[in-house]
Amino acid sequence: MNYSVIVEVALREGIADPEGATIERALPALGFTGVTNVRAGKAFRFEVEAADEAAALEKATAMAERLLSNPVIENATARSAAPG
Amino acid sequence: MNYSVIVEVALREGIADPEGATIERALPALGFTGVTNVRAGKAFRFEVEAADEAAALEKATAMAERLLSNPVIENATARSAAPG
Repeated sequence: MNYSVIVEVALREGIADPEGATIERALPALGFTGVTNVRAGKAFRFEVEAADEAAALEKATAMAERLLSNPVIENATARSAAPG
Repeated sequence: MNYSVIVEVALREGIADPEGATIERALPALGFTGVTNVRAGKAFRFEVEAADEAAALEKATAMAERLLSNPVIENATARSAAPG
């Protein structure tokens, strides 16, 4: 069966995030105040063929660590999405 | 109060996604088979100061549409994250 998975890749705590900092600086000029701690990351969606949801998430986590993220500076988390 | 929000920005259906296609082609060489329909997008995490969670998500959605995404080719969805 096919399972829909989302992998979110985010910079680890303490790693500088210039993209997030730039967004944060731009917000007040657009009228958005009270927004702090902006961190920019990546999100990947895909379908995994697996026997069950746990196997699908395990495969997605392995993929996230080998190909989708740089584990030295990034955290990757896989979760299942609504099928579609 | 501060609410933790995640905004996910993904290319709309039908928009070509060369990054996702490249990932998909690379997977079999790494031993990952049965993975299809890979779509690459962005994820932003931040804290929003708002009266309640609904107001925080509304502000995040407005931000996502004005600054974080290009609504012509991308969909943005905001959801709340575990506070942290």
